[in-house]
Order: sequence, then C-alpha cells, then structure tokens
Amino acid sequence: MRVVELSGGVGGARMARGLAALDGIDLTVVVNVGDDEWFHGLRVCADIDTVLYTLAGIEGPEGWGRRDDTFAFNEELARYGVDNRFRIGDRDLALIVTRTARLAAGEPLSQINADLAKKLEITATVLPATDDELRTEVRLDDGWVSFQEYFVLRRNQDEVREVAYRGAGEARPAPGVIEAIRSADLVVIAPSNPPLSVWPILAVPGMRDAVAQHPRVVAVSPLFGGKALKGPAHRIMASLGLPPGNQGVAEAYAGLIDLLVVDGGDAAEPVEGVEVLATDTRIKDPEDAARLARELVAL
Amino acid sequence: MRVVELSGGVGGARMARGLAALDGIDLTVVVNVGDDEWFHGLRVCADIDTVLYTLAGIEGPEGWGRRDDTFAFNEELARYGVDNRFRIGDRDLALIVTRTARLAAGEPLSQINADLAKKLEITATVLPATDDELRTEVRLDDGWVSFQEYFVLRRNQDEVREVAYRGAGEARPAPGVIEAIRSADLVVIAPSNPPLSVWPILAVPGMRDAVAQHPRVVAVSPLFGGKALKGPAHRIMASLGLPPGNQGVAEAYAGLIDLLVVDGGDAAEPVEGVEVLATDTRIKDPEDAARLARELVAL
Repeated sequence: MRVVELSGGVGGARMARGLAALDGIDLTVVVNVGDDEWFHGLRVCADIDTVLYTLAGIEGPEGWGRRDDTFAFNEELARYGVDNRFRIGDRDLALIVTRTARLAAGEPLSQINADLAKKLEITATVLPATDDELRTEVRLDDGWVSFQEYFVLRRNQDEVREVAYRGAGEARPAPGVIEAIRSADLVVIAPSNPPLSVWPILAVPGMRDAVAQHPRVVAVSPLFGGKALKGPAHRIMASLGLPPGNQGVAEAYAGLIDLLVVDGGDAAEPVEGVEVLATDTRIKDPEDAARLARELVAL
Repeated sequence: MRVVELSGGVGGARMARGLAALDGIDLTVVVNVGDDEWFHGLRVCADIDTVLYTLAGIEGPEGWGRRDDTFAFNEELARYGVDNRFRIGDRDLALIVTRTARLAAGEPLSQINADLAKKLEITATVLPATDDELRTEVRLDDGWVSFQEYFVLRRNQDEVREVAYRGAGEARPAPGVIEAIRSADLVVIAPSNPPLSVWPILAVPGMRDAVAQHPRVVAVSPLFGGKALKGPAHRIMASLGLPPGNQGVAEAYAGLIDLLVVDGGDAAEPVEGVEVLATDTRIKDPEDAARLARELVAL
C-alpha cells in the first residue's frame, strides 16, 4: 500500500515513524521547507531534519535536533559576538554542514536528502515539497519576519496577523512529489500546524490540485480540546479567521480532505462539512504512532 | 618599539606570544595563508587560527586548535560518508563558521581577523599575508597536492619534489602589511618551516622587497641538530636543494636577513654568509617564548 504524508516538524515526524513501522507500507513523506533558514551561512532545514532524525530513531528529547547532542559550537559562537539563540548542536551540525556544502556545489535539496536518508538507513522516501527556496513569513504587529524569527527567536509570543509563502509562486514541486501523490492509495495530512506547516506545502503550484483530486485524503487534527499540544497553531488559526477547534482544521483543509481524524477527547465537538473519526491521536511514543498509523491505513 | 613577525603555525604562534608578552612592544604578526583550505565548504585558516588561539591563550595541547575541544561534529560526519580525517573541533568550528559566513558576505579576511582578534582580546595586530587566495601546493611523486592533503591527510610521509604558491602572482599584500614592515624597528622571521610557511608570505608581490630593504631582519632557525622539532622542514629543505642544517636556513633567507638565531646546541655548526647568534631557541612554554623574545628585541 502506498501512503503519502504531508508533514511539518515534530508531529508529522512522529506520525511518519508510525507509518514507516507498518509492514507492507511504501511511505513517502513530503516535508515543509518554509521554515528552512540560513544561520551563520549554514542551511538549516528544520522540518526535514526532524523527519530524518525521527525516522532514524536519533531525534532529540523534545522531538527536534539530535539525541545526545552537545552545544560546544553554539556556546562558543557567543565569544565572537554571533547571535546564538537558535541553538544548533554539535552532532546536528554535521548534517547541516554536509547539506550546505552539497547545496553550494549545486546539488538539489531532494537529491541530497535522499542520500542523507540512505546514510541514516531510512527506508521511507523523504522529499522536500520543493527544491526551490520557499520561505514562510508572518506579519506581526511590527512587520514581516521569517518563521524562525517568530517561532524560535521571539518564542512565538507575538500575534500573527498574516502569513505569506515567499517564492511559492515560482517554486516547482520536487521531483517525484506529484507522482507520489497521484500513485498513492492514501494521503495523510500530518497533525502539524495547518497555516505554518501544511499550507506552505500546498502553496507550491500543482500541489493543492494533486491533493484535491486524490480520492482518499485524511487529515489528523493537531488540536486537543481546541489547542495544539505545543506551539501556537490554535492562536494563529484564530488570527487568520478560522473558527476555533476542529471546525477550523476542517476549514483549513476545505476541498482537500475526505476525513478528519480528531482526538477521542474531542469526539463530541460538532464539525461540519467533512466526515470525522475520533480516536486516540496523542503520540507520546513510537507505539502510539504505530497504532494510529495502523488505524489510518485500515480505514 | 615596533616589531613585525612573519609567522607560520605553531612555532610562529609561540614566538608571537613571547613578543606580545613584552612591555612596550607594538607587535604585528603577518601570517601565512598558503595552508588555508576549504573543508566541507568551510574556510579553515590553519596558521591564522593557531596564532589567534595562542595569543588568546586558548590553543590546543599540540599547539593547534582549541583547548578543551570536543569532536562530536567531526565524529558525526562519518555517518554521512564525509571524509573527516582533517579533524575540526566543535569549539574551533565556531570561529571557522563565523569567518566563512563573513567571507561569503564579502568581508575581507584581514578585516574579519581584526575583529576576531578583538573579540579574543588580543592586543597584537594579526594580519594575513594577503586577503587574496594563495595556495601552497607540493609536488609529490604522484602529482601536485595541497599543503593540507600532504601534511595532514598523508601525514607528511611523501617526498616533496617541488613547492608552488598558486595565486601568489596576482595576490596583493593585505592592507597594512607593507606599512607595518616599513615602519617596524625589527622584523622577526619566526622559527617556522621556510619553504612551506615563510616563502608563501614572501611570494606575495612587494613582500620580499619590503623585507629585503628593512635594515634589521632576524630569522630564528626552526632546526635543532639539523632537524625540525616536529614536521618535515629539514626533509623538504633537502629535497628543494638547500644545504643541511642552519646553512640551509641561511640560504632559504639569502638577501633578506641580517642575523640568524640558532639554538645553543648548534653553536658550533659553521654557517656562512650571515651573522649568527646562538641561544636557547626551544620554546616549551610562554616563559621560554618571552625570554627568547626579550633577547631578540634587546639585540
């Protein structure tokens, strides 16, 4: 069975691990690149790395970065007056430096990732939404900033007034992405932040149509009792005019999904315009992920 | 008193620390850049970093790299199939990444170094011989390779048949270098490898003339009983046709120096064509360096 997952960072990565653990599943994870950023001249692909590390089973304790990492490099940057609030671990840096050098040599992101995934002994296919530069920016009360500036440097405290995906209009889907969606038996939209993690994937020309035309698209809601477990998804959705709770998730994916999977705790919440399935969507460990994945593919 | 030192790596850095420790000395260290190399898309300035770290008192136990460094990054590179035989420490990487990012932004090497030296609270002026790319290559029996390939990756086991300083013809001295030499009361050629560390400095157009015209140039021999304490200096000098021992050092700097300082153990060795002074030139610690420096400036 062929499954495509559209994924942001931690939530999507954990969902991907669940799908990858199932027998007989040919999994392609299409990952958001809107959060990718240059730090100190190095290309950091935040969501892709979270997916790679999680699928390899070497992700950090909070879900991002590398397990057992150290921060000597990051600490030392301060000595040279370099802003080091975006913390990059010493082991994480090996992947980041390797990718940056290969990008500088002209290799496309998708090809580099395919090789990194192979080196990490990952069997799933991990594709960036696009090889082109696509940059998610948010308008705060004092102007437009990048996702990482808003999310990490300002600790997502500000109100988001507007979201833009710079470069999306000229971006092309990475090789294999559209084909994977077309030939998939199931498309899963991960329990990621809809406006910040999934919309930038859908903003790549051709992507929204491919998903809309697919006969079996299931979204897993990132909300529990109307709020994201972590992060500002519910606040941003409200700011952007979406209704609260899972109705907002349904509307974020209007015209795209055939089923919305919500948490059992929210089973009684009325959601209009889409079929809803309630189950335990909380992913605390790989076993939770595998159980949820099993339910999705059994639908 | 104004002193200019022409310096390679460890030996020159230790000499510089001795000179910098003296009262009333305005020190400018002009550092070889021929050993600079790109690793993983990062610019490694081997000799400059050794000089910076040593002057800041944070150099590694062997004289190069950072004290108390860790190698998580370097170790992790192997996971991605990257050649990591040139070991870069995690703390060392902070300086390397900072410099690479600033070079990529178009800032000249000399300006970046001046700022890094300031951040490291170094009072001496540390200048690269040139802001342009100048690359020392050596011809081995199987062809031309870079200095780092020969020295680190092949552990300087091969016979060096020829030395070339690629790009030297078009290089310009870094801003301030010629002025510093002209206005110096004393020019010291460090106990560095003549063909591999000092000649590439002298290969920058204008440099050899500035040194030759200076009335007080003193070279400290890197040899002890005809051999370098570490490294292949004596073997390379022989390969390039220089006579053995301190006569070879004198000829390596023919027409440039007014005095050759040799180790006390070599006082009886006959050297023709230049005045010779024998003293204890072994630098084991900062105190040795300061004592030798005091003798040089007292001449």
